[in-house]
Amino acid sequence: MRLNASERGVFPIAPTPFAADGAIDLASIDRLTDFYAQGGATGLTVLGVMGEAPKLDPAEALVVARRFIARAGKLPVIVGVSAPGFAAMAALARSAMDAGAAGVMIAPPSSLRTDDQIVAYYAQASEAIGADVPFVIQDYPLTFTVVMTPGVIRRIVTDNPSCMMLKHEDWPGLEKISALRAFEADGTMRPISILCGNGGLFLDFECERGADGAMTGYAFPDMLVDVVRLSAAGAREAAHDLFDAHLPLLRYEQQPGIGLAVRKYVMARRGLIGSDVQRRPAGALSATAVAEVEYLLGRLARHDPRAALPPR
Amino acid sequence: MRLNASERGVFPIAPTPFAADGAIDLASIDRLTDFYAQGGATGLTVLGVMGEAPKLDPAEALVVARRFIARAGKLPVIVGVSAPGFAAMAALARSAMDAGAAGVMIAPPSSLRTDDQIVAYYAQASEAIGADVPFVIQDYPLTFTVVMTPGVIRRIVTDNPSCMMLKHEDWPGLEKISALRAFEADGTMRPISILCGNGGLFLDFECERGADGAMTGYAFPDMLVDVVRLSAAGAREAAHDLFDAHLPLLRYEQQPGIGLAVRKYVMARRGLIGSDVQRRPAGALSATAVAEVEYLLGRLARHDPRAALPPR
Amino acid sequence: MRLNASERGVFPIAPTPFAADGAIDLASIDRLTDFYAQGGATGLTVLGVMGEAPKLDPAEALVVARRFIARAGKLPVIVGVSAPGFAAMAALARSAMDAGAAGVMIAPPSSLRTDDQIVAYYAQASEAIGADVPFVIQDYPLTFTVVMTPGVIRRIVTDNPSCMMLKHEDWPGLEKISALRAFEADGTMRPISILCGNGGLFLDFECERGADGAMTGYAFPDMLVDVVRLSAAGAREAAHDLFDAHLPLLRYEQQPGIGLAVRKYVMARRGLIGSDVQRRPAGALSATAVAEVEYLLGRLARHDPRAALPPR
Amino acid sequence: MRLNASERGVFPIAPTPFAADGAIDLASIDRLTDFYAQGGATGLTVLGVMGEAPKLDPAEALVVARRFIARAGKLPVIVGVSAPGFAAMAALARSAMDAGAAGVMIAPPSSLRTDDQIVAYYAQASEAIGADVPFVIQDYPLTFTVVMTPGVIRRIVTDNPSCMMLKHEDWPGLEKISALRAFEADGTMRPISILCGNGGLFLDFECERGADGAMTGYAFPDMLVDVVRLSAAGAREAAHDLFDAHLPLLRYEQQPGIGLAVRKYVMARRGLIGSDVQRRPAGALSATAVAEVEYLLGRLARHDPRAALPPR
Repeated sequence: MRLNASERGVFPIAPTPFAADGAIDLASIDRLTDFYAQGGATGLTVLGVMGEAPKLDPAEALVVARRFIARAGKLPVIVGVSAPGFAAMAALARSAMDAGAAGVMIAPPSSLRTDDQIVAYYAQASEAIGADVPFVIQDYPLTFTVVMTPGVIRRIVTDNPSCMMLKHEDWPGLEKISALRAFEADGTMRPISILCGNGGLFLDFECERGADGAMTGYAFPDMLVDVVRLSAAGAREAAHDLFDAHLPLLRYEQQPGIGLAVRKYVMARRGLIGSDVQRRPAGALSATAVAEVEYLLGRLARHDPRAALPPR
Repeated sequence: MRLNASERGVFPIAPTPFAADGAIDLASIDRLTDFYAQGGATGLTVLGVMGEAPKLDPAEALVVARRFIARAGKLPVIVGVSAPGFAAMAALARSAMDAGAAGVMIAPPSSLRTDDQIVAYYAQASEAIGADVPFVIQDYPLTFTVVMTPGVIRRIVTDNPSCMMLKHEDWPGLEKISALRAFEADGTMRPISILCGNGGLFLDFECERGADGAMTGYAFPDMLVDVVRLSAAGAREAAHDLFDAHLPLLRYEQQPGIGLAVRKYVMARRGLIGSDVQRRPAGALSATAVAEVEYLLGRLARHDPRAALPPR
Repeated sequence: MRLNASERGVFPIAPTPFAADGAIDLASIDRLTDFYAQGGATGLTVLGVMGEAPKLDPAEALVVARRFIARAGKLPVIVGVSAPGFAAMAALARSAMDAGAAGVMIAPPSSLRTDDQIVAYYAQASEAIGADVPFVIQDYPLTFTVVMTPGVIRRIVTDNPSCMMLKHEDWPGLEKISALRAFEADGTMRPISILCGNGGLFLDFECERGADGAMTGYAFPDMLVDVVRLSAAGAREAAHDLFDAHLPLLRYEQQPGIGLAVRKYVMARRGLIGSDVQRRPAGALSATAVAEVEYLLGRLARHDPRAALPPR
Repeated sequence: MRLNASERGVFPIAPTPFAADGAIDLASIDRLTDFYAQGGATGLTVLGVMGEAPKLDPAEALVVARRFIARAGKLPVIVGVSAPGFAAMAALARSAMDAGAAGVMIAPPSSLRTDDQIVAYYAQASEAIGADVPFVIQDYPLTFTVVMTPGVIRRIVTDNPSCMMLKHEDWPGLEKISALRAFEADGTMRPISILCGNGGLFLDFECERGADGAMTGYAFPDMLVDVVRLSAAGAREAAHDLFDAHLPLLRYEQQPGIGLAVRKYVMARRGLIGSDVQRRPAGALSATAVAEVEYLLGRLARHDPRAALPPR
């Protein structure tokens, strides 16, 4: 099963669950993967930044990827392979594909500046991992400081037949989705899958602009699935009502630095993973922050029963 | 009237209104200032980045500042004086104070890196503008790429008696507010006013963490006033209910690049300014974006009648 | 007299001389300008970063520019007009041209990333200052973090007939000169003047690659003039011999942060300006650094008698 | 053999030699290591940025490190272990130390900004690799954009007993050496070894300021050895004469992007490695650049017979 350019729906960015002693929590990987599948995810993405990939050594990374892939069954799994050099990237990509990954995701190094540098980087990366390995462009200027115009994305897509998907998290990015879909409409770019990240902060309108879905890690991926489904079905008000109910918590979770702590906390509260342990260095939640999250969950529960959790 | 360290409430970041031909729209300055005053603002801030200050030549900047100050009457007016060099900063600060400003706001240049560089910069800036001129630290790492720890802010406050206020827009920043208030509580820093920016995206919790209010430019500054007031009065649920109703639009307005276009569009729709004209270079709203804003206004109007606007 | 695209030789980057009390030292401006003219400069550039432009208020900046222009007589004077916004840039450009400047120099703001952003910026800048005002592109990625490919420079040159010159200080940059001259040779770009900066660190080879000369501020501009002349005359060995003799001091002067202090110190020692005073904030030379500079001057004097200075 | 805080002399930054097909050239590793030892190096550093470490997969990196270590015999070998996460860093450090490395070198990630962040990072890194593993701080703001004050370095040295050395390549940096040595003199910091990088561009004065030597990769490491030795022996003029003769080539080699191509080209010309092949992505020398390097070698040969190479 290989990733193709017509993927739709929600590919959650999976966290890596750890036990209290920092060991990889394999049982939680299984539980989480089952939850994604039952909740309507159409794929998943592992070993991203929010998957604490830099805190895993190469052998561990492979263990994590294999476990997710094995459990995901028919769901395609994308593996993040961004690395400071092409040798490490190629090694991880090869291992991941051998283990059954559907494709890989590649972020640009922050040293890239000009259009030509960005285009050349993806050509070299594709050559390094193998022209037959489907890949996803991660376009996240807020973190990577690399800015790709729609025209640059079009060049990458055109130059590399194995480029199947854009993880769109430019900010602002709504017009970028429209521009890329316009390229497809006027025949100057072949169609690709566009899944949106950025914590889901604009998912309501991204779907309406033509995105195929979401690839992000909000602690209620089932909500993301619902919003994408409702939007695709034309139930605009229902989509926005659900999204807006989650927005206060979603915004809280999107804070850089402590976002993953919030996410893991809520996922552990929901029982999706065994604990909210992060490997070090880890952003920690103060007692006040925990109380704020609980307060937001309580308010959310009035609109979405999935947020009604048993007391701690 | 000079700014002091016990300011509270909402100091809106005022946009600069322009006529269709790009001229400064003085009548709109008056109308907007009246609206702020009647809506409960406790001060205002002019010539910030969102006030299109870089698009005004020095003479125009002074015209704008004077008009706001004259109309604001008893409300204190803070003037943004950030500049690439201390000579221009001092010249503008002097003119602004002569015109009746209550104080000035200073952002750090993006070249600053170390703690000592940041502390030295504010010492030099205060010396340049005059040790008697009250100033506000603008702490906005997302835009300026300068990161100030709570300890650095304490050093600036301690070194400079004329530092009266922090415009807090670090992200994430809730723990920073708590840390600064803890410094005050343990007597290691004199109390200062903390008003929060960042588009208001976390105002609900910032108030609860000890902020004195807001300094930002959302198109419904009257909502910001209400949230600060409700929060101060202990009406927590009411504060969050109102805030959450606005959050979808507030988030939309906070997008970098087109945020000001959204803000001016809504302010013009509300009749607070004569038009949404920006001077070039300006981020423009596509027809789709306008429709999205109108849709958000329509949804908001169900919760807040202030958003119920006559059809265009 | 307007700048045109066939300028050649050396346009020194002039420092702004100050008296001990920080006042502008007008007599030193005259003396320095005379020295440049007699030493073979073919133009000069004022109010650059190394001219301490940010430490001058707008009125002072104009005083400085006018004095240089008046004294320079037939030599064309370029005025740096980089500013955070187009309003200030246009105001300064207008004043400078009214005062008799030959053209202006514009650096890109560090926020620019994509090719299209850079091209658009120069189009807007040219529109702001007036399409009839000759301008110079300053291409200095080390300081501005904006990277322009040869193709981007070609687009700017082609889009803006008033673009007359490139201040080339990319690093490494030799191949860039070759690429631009190749564009001219194959007819895809009209010829422009290329003067090289970067402290002169590669001037020996830049001339051989096709540069028209230098625009930088080394304390021995007369050496730069000689190297450009010798190189143009085909006296390769003589050019390198002279350049290499200066390289140890030139390298020392090129250090970021304290480079201007070295430059002013040596210029004052040579009697070109009345003192080495900088306005604050200023990088200062320690006693050890002064001794190092004197040691380098002493060694240089064995090869170039212009460095044989009377004892302090 | 473990690195200690009293290392002196020259630790060349070793390139990784490759064969024409991109395979690691083990014979050249041996030849190069022998050359270093016979030329007076007191140690060496492998797998740095200029060692093309990011182009080696983890297994290859270990092969390279082991070969250098085995051949170096009594010379201490430092292994670069900078990595995007502590897991990969710890894994590589463990392997390197097991293979007989004397210590490791750690560069700060470019996301660090505040003093506390930098100090915390080195504490976490030391914990990750093991408190018994000697490490070197790499202080290279030009590339890493992380600025460490002398005070921050003192905190790292004081907090971490296993910090043995500073690879100093701040720019400008002469005053930093003086400041650190002053800390040692006044007893506020324990003595550490300071070896200077930055391509050797200021080695002449760095030695005089109190540096213990050099850690850089210029194609004539034997010249670096001589300059350090002459300077230590008080032969100031001789040290500068030799350094100045090399400065034109040394400067040429220091260009970012193509510096390694120049270095490998000259090393291959000298017979120190079998070829100048780099793995991709590689900066290439144009025919003109090769001619420039040959010209510089020819000029240098008049002063230093080591540069008199047989024709190609």
